[in-house]
Amino acid sequence: MPRPIDWVGDVATPHIWVLDQTRLPGETVFLQVETIEQLLDAIGRLAVRGAPALGVAGAMGVALAAYTLDSDEQVARAAAALRAARPTAVNLARGGDLALAALPQGREAVLAAAIGLRDSEIAASTAMARRGADDLYRRVGASGQALRLMTICNTGALATVERGTALAVIEQVMRDSRLKRVIACETRPLLQGARLTAWELTQLGAPFDLIVDAAAASVMARGLVDAVLVGADRITANGDVVNKIGTFALALAAQHAGIPLYAVAPESTVDLATASGDHVEIEDRGAAEVVAFGGRPTAPVGTSALNPAFDVTPAKLVTAIVTDRRVIDLGRGDLPTDPLPDGAGPAATPRTRSGEGAPA
Amino acid sequence: MPRPIDWVGDVATPHIWVLDQTRLPGETVFLQVETIEQLLDAIGRLAVRGAPALGVAGAMGVALAAYTLDSDEQVARAAAALRAARPTAVNLARGGDLALAALPQGREAVLAAAIGLRDSEIAASTAMARRGADDLYRRVGASGQALRLMTICNTGALATVERGTALAVIEQVMRDSRLKRVIACETRPLLQGARLTAWELTQLGAPFDLIVDAAAASVMARGLVDAVLVGADRITANGDVVNKIGTFALALAAQHAGIPLYAVAPESTVDLATASGDHVEIEDRGAAEVVAFGGRPTAPVGTSALNPAFDVTPAKLVTAIVTDRRVIDLGRGDLPTDPLPDGAGPAATPRTRSGEGAPA
Repeated sequence: MPRPIDWVGDVATPHIWVLDQTRLPGETVFLQVETIEQLLDAIGRLAVRGAPALGVAGAMGVALAAYTLDSDEQVARAAAALRAARPTAVNLARGGDLALAALPQGREAVLAAAIGLRDSEIAASTAMARRGADDLYRRVGASGQALRLMTICNTGALATVERGTALAVIEQVMRDSRLKRVIACETRPLLQGARLTAWELTQLGAPFDLIVDAAAASVMARGLVDAVLVGADRITANGDVVNKIGTFALALAAQHAGIPLYAVAPESTVDLATASGDHVEIEDRGAAEVVAFGGRPTAPVGTSALNPAFDVTPAKLVTAIVTDRRVIDLGRGDLPTDPLPDGAGPAATPRTRSGEGAPA
Repeated sequence: MPRPIDWVGDVATPHIWVLDQTRLPGETVFLQVETIEQLLDAIGRLAVRGAPALGVAGAMGVALAAYTLDSDEQVARAAAALRAARPTAVNLARGGDLALAALPQGREAVLAAAIGLRDSEIAASTAMARRGADDLYRRVGASGQALRLMTICNTGALATVERGTALAVIEQVMRDSRLKRVIACETRPLLQGARLTAWELTQLGAPFDLIVDAAAASVMARGLVDAVLVGADRITANGDVVNKIGTFALALAAQHAGIPLYAVAPESTVDLATASGDHVEIEDRGAAEVVAFGGRPTAPVGTSALNPAFDVTPAKLVTAIVTDRRVIDLGRGDLPTDPLPDGAGPAATPRTRSGEGAPA
């Protein structure tokens, strides 16, 4: 599987390669991104998306600015533009900040920071996959049976750099020969589940069924799902999970069905500076994505739409948060009164790998 | 607004006109249905849909059979084929049975039964609209404010014969100058909300926003909705509501948000012979509707899908059922231990109009 974003240029021709995810599953097209404007366009129309991949995009974008723009001031302005491109995802801003912090040491240091972030995201995916799978076996697979796992949006290699977050856990369960079936929500309006997750599951050879998002609650209630795994665009200090629109509805349905819901995300997604989901700006992406499909109108001309890209799942509806460092058991039903335990640290904190692969 | 189905033929050329709803909102095309095979095709691909309209289709279908086929045995076979065309909707079978019961009195009696059903559905819509609006004002509009109402699928004139069920209540609120805004769920996979409800709301001049189904829970949690109104394809003896896939998720979200959810349906939808939603066959319409859109693939070739057309909302998640005769307060949170009060009667029971228009 190709990486969805990577730095491929040399010093003479610095550029980023971006796999244009809007063309999947029909076509595999790489964009050669040579300017900040091109990168902003790619981010804005979701050619590159997914919280960890956006973090790498932010960092590599600042590196691109450092190599192609004339002054530190221009680089800082580019970093600010990147930060504003997707306001809800904390990783984009953090990746840019991480790279920008190295600017006083020169452009090589900026690039090294971006490459380092890429490599740490890859290591984080492997750690999340192992931790999440082990916690699943403990919580719902104690009798050794194969598992039926539901997910939403795309949280695989396409959303990170390699493997993924929630989908990496599912892939790990498959590697462990414990996967019975995946139920993938199509994820309107942009159908990341149908286009991207189904594509990745097909590449992996994983058995799966696609469903419309509105069918998820009923499929759970009918006893067809053992656990739900979702990613996160931001996890606030109280454990609220900001993720793709539809996640909150899955959490309500999982609670009703008595099955666990996991949020799987790297530590860099944890935002201790934000107290709760109430304080997170929710991006509205406008009516066009809702009133048409593939360029073909589906609603009468002039139809107005609300199009929030994310929702907030209260911590009390989340069973556990799996990160690359630990499993945070939120004990669904008991809203934690304290912030997340110390150690959640911001993304800039060097990631320790000491606990990697061991159950939390 | 044209009726979505009507009997327009004379004795020499008996036929049914069906507004082909699969062509909306782009085109207004009427099908001239002259054979049972044509009607089965129209029902199967949802050119005509909606529980009350399907009841009329079943009855008019049997009348068409009585006028065009040679023997009572052939008419009975046609009625059986109609009954099997959409297994979940009770009205289709009941409409056919009602017309078939008149066959011993001759084809004119069969047609009269079908026309009578059409007219009683029209009267029922008017009664539901008034009852539902009055109950809304009592329950969430006591201070006289204008209301923000969410709905799913299409439950308007297109789903009945005139006005509708849940959407008729919304239209009544608008007539009463108490409507602030409608939030219409697009209703994947076939987008009845985007294509049909948005079209009807546009015709009515009602202010509305379209949303993807997965956004409904979040929109409710953000305090943007005063009540949710849905239709029903079948209401079982314990008050469970079988309706368009996605309704159950709306009910979970409405409960979480502390706002009422109404099911609005004619008495003919109440099925006292079925104890609970557990005993209702849920139609799966196959993968094609989920993996492609307007003939364009949205998922990789060969993708498998689950496509349940309906779900079951447990009675305990329903605030009230509004019919043409009464408002049944289910006191959400308390599952009724007794069947619905006597008087719910099957569709074949003549509908009393004594209480029409009066608050329940």
